[in-house]
Amino acid sequence: MKEHSKIFHEQMDLRAARAEEVLRKYLPQADPCAKTVAEAASYSLLAGGKRLRPVILDASCRMYGGRSELAEPFMAALEMIHTFSLVHDDLPSMDDDEYRRGRKTTHIVYGEGMALLAGDALLNLAVETALTAFDKARTPEETAAVIRALKVLMRNAGMEGMIGGQCADLEAEAHPEETDAQKLLYIHRHKTACMIASAFQIGAILAGAPEQDIEDLGRVADDTGIAFQIIDDILDVTGDSEELGKLTGSDEKDGKVTYVTMHGLDGAEQEAGRLTEEALGLLDRLGGTADAEEQAFLTNLVRSLLTRRK
Amino acid sequence: MKEHSKIFHEQMDLRAARAEEVLRKYLPQADPCAKTVAEAASYSLLAGGKRLRPVILDASCRMYGGRSELAEPFMAALEMIHTFSLVHDDLPSMDDDEYRRGRKTTHIVYGEGMALLAGDALLNLAVETALTAFDKARTPEETAAVIRALKVLMRNAGMEGMIGGQCADLEAEAHPEETDAQKLLYIHRHKTACMIASAFQIGAILAGAPEQDIEDLGRVADDTGIAFQIIDDILDVTGDSEELGKLTGSDEKDGKVTYVTMHGLDGAEQEAGRLTEEALGLLDRLGGTADAEEQAFLTNLVRSLLTRRK
Repeated sequence: MKEHSKIFHEQMDLRAARAEEVLRKYLPQADPCAKTVAEAASYSLLAGGKRLRPVILDASCRMYGGRSELAEPFMAALEMIHTFSLVHDDLPSMDDDEYRRGRKTTHIVYGEGMALLAGDALLNLAVETALTAFDKARTPEETAAVIRALKVLMRNAGMEGMIGGQCADLEAEAHPEETDAQKLLYIHRHKTACMIASAFQIGAILAGAPEQDIEDLGRVADDTGIAFQIIDDILDVTGDSEELGKLTGSDEKDGKVTYVTMHGLDGAEQEAGRLTEEALGLLDRLGGTADAEEQAFLTNLVRSLLTRRK
Repeated sequence: MKEHSKIFHEQMDLRAARAEEVLRKYLPQADPCAKTVAEAASYSLLAGGKRLRPVILDASCRMYGGRSELAEPFMAALEMIHTFSLVHDDLPSMDDDEYRRGRKTTHIVYGEGMALLAGDALLNLAVETALTAFDKARTPEETAAVIRALKVLMRNAGMEGMIGGQCADLEAEAHPEETDAQKLLYIHRHKTACMIASAFQIGAILAGAPEQDIEDLGRVADDTGIAFQIIDDILDVTGDSEELGKLTGSDEKDGKVTYVTMHGLDGAEQEAGRLTEEALGLLDRLGGTADAEEQAFLTNLVRSLLTRRK
């Protein structure tokens, strides 16, 4: 088991490095008059991170024998949208964070106005980047797949996806007393699971996967995203501060509504376990056209996310 | 002449009302949990305004016999991008404006965090809206035209377009002493002319206009956008406060670098005149496939923008 897990982590590192390489191909180029916003956008994009979303998108495309030429622009675009959301989330009018992963946040380095523009620029650049996939499409079917992938990407990022989740989250922080179980689920699902759904589904769509598999991968993403957030809430209560690298018990101190305050520790553990089982079961039962090696990689990835203790 | 101008203004009002109607078709729909961000986005979109960009896009598509079904999503999308830029420009970290067109700005009504999200949501919704044009395309040529229109839309909005101009503008305000003639031209061209270019060119692209006309319309837009800004600078010095509805002389008081401080009043007047002549000449000499009535409407529109005294 330990050997097994070591192999997975080596694989993960290799694939994250590949995602990083893809991202670097699409870094912003700008006129000298606009170089600061391009620099701020690059600074934010190259702040490290697990590159989880592009790695999943890549694997899901490979799983159905898709062409990496089509997937690459979407890998970069998805990471750009994720980064845009972090840059704006860190702004003083939102979470007001000065550090992220031990590095100064974009507005601390470039000022608030420029960070605002850098976030805007990243969302715009994400679309420009994804649009280059049309130049790689060789058949009308591939063009249609790129159109569908773009729609999924934007829907999951917008008011019916991530931005909708951010809106509900912002209001929940201001009015914790009005936050019920349904709203909390809405926040987890939209703020987190929607972008994971883009990763799982866009790769499969670009590769022309069977409809049933695309649908099942959407459920895998939903389970994974929600379980991931519940585990975050659990670790904030039970985790070892040193191992987690951050203070535990902070949610309680902040009076934050979490899955644990809402359903108790046992309820939260049970729900996370149920979602994890469901996600792994769905991945295991994907249609016969799925490549076994990529299927195993994605299963290991979901398992590693949902059995983490830090 | 007066009768002539009256007819044009009636036409303009009718077409602006039509653009408004199109925009209302694409207003955001959101889950009750995300209704505040949808409301804030609608509040910003329905703040009035001349709807100049969608009106131009519509006319440029009609001029080449294009289908309004294809143009409508882009008319709405362009106005959404314009509105997103205003919402973020008004934020405290940018221009810090409390009123726009006599109405409280979005962050004054909904708070700074929600206005930030509403701007983000509008850019995202613009893309989702433009993507619906694919559902209306009937031939591979129309699909290709929609792809090209999307690329033009996003390029002109992003770091190589409007956002690039906003970056240069933000830096010019902080360091007026470093702003030279080239930088000032860059700001006018990118912050203003690029979005006008989207309007003129996307309509023609969707209608399958000749390449030479698409190129010429890009130059018309460039001349128009730059001349419009120069006239703004001139009116700030020579205009009648009461007629303009805002304080004049504010640029000088703010120590702002303008076309007038850079080239003098005569130099600015001359350049605005030259650009206006060039734009009108180009519009007049468009290829033979252009519909004469729409060509006349666009000529009148450019003339009204560039001979305004308020």
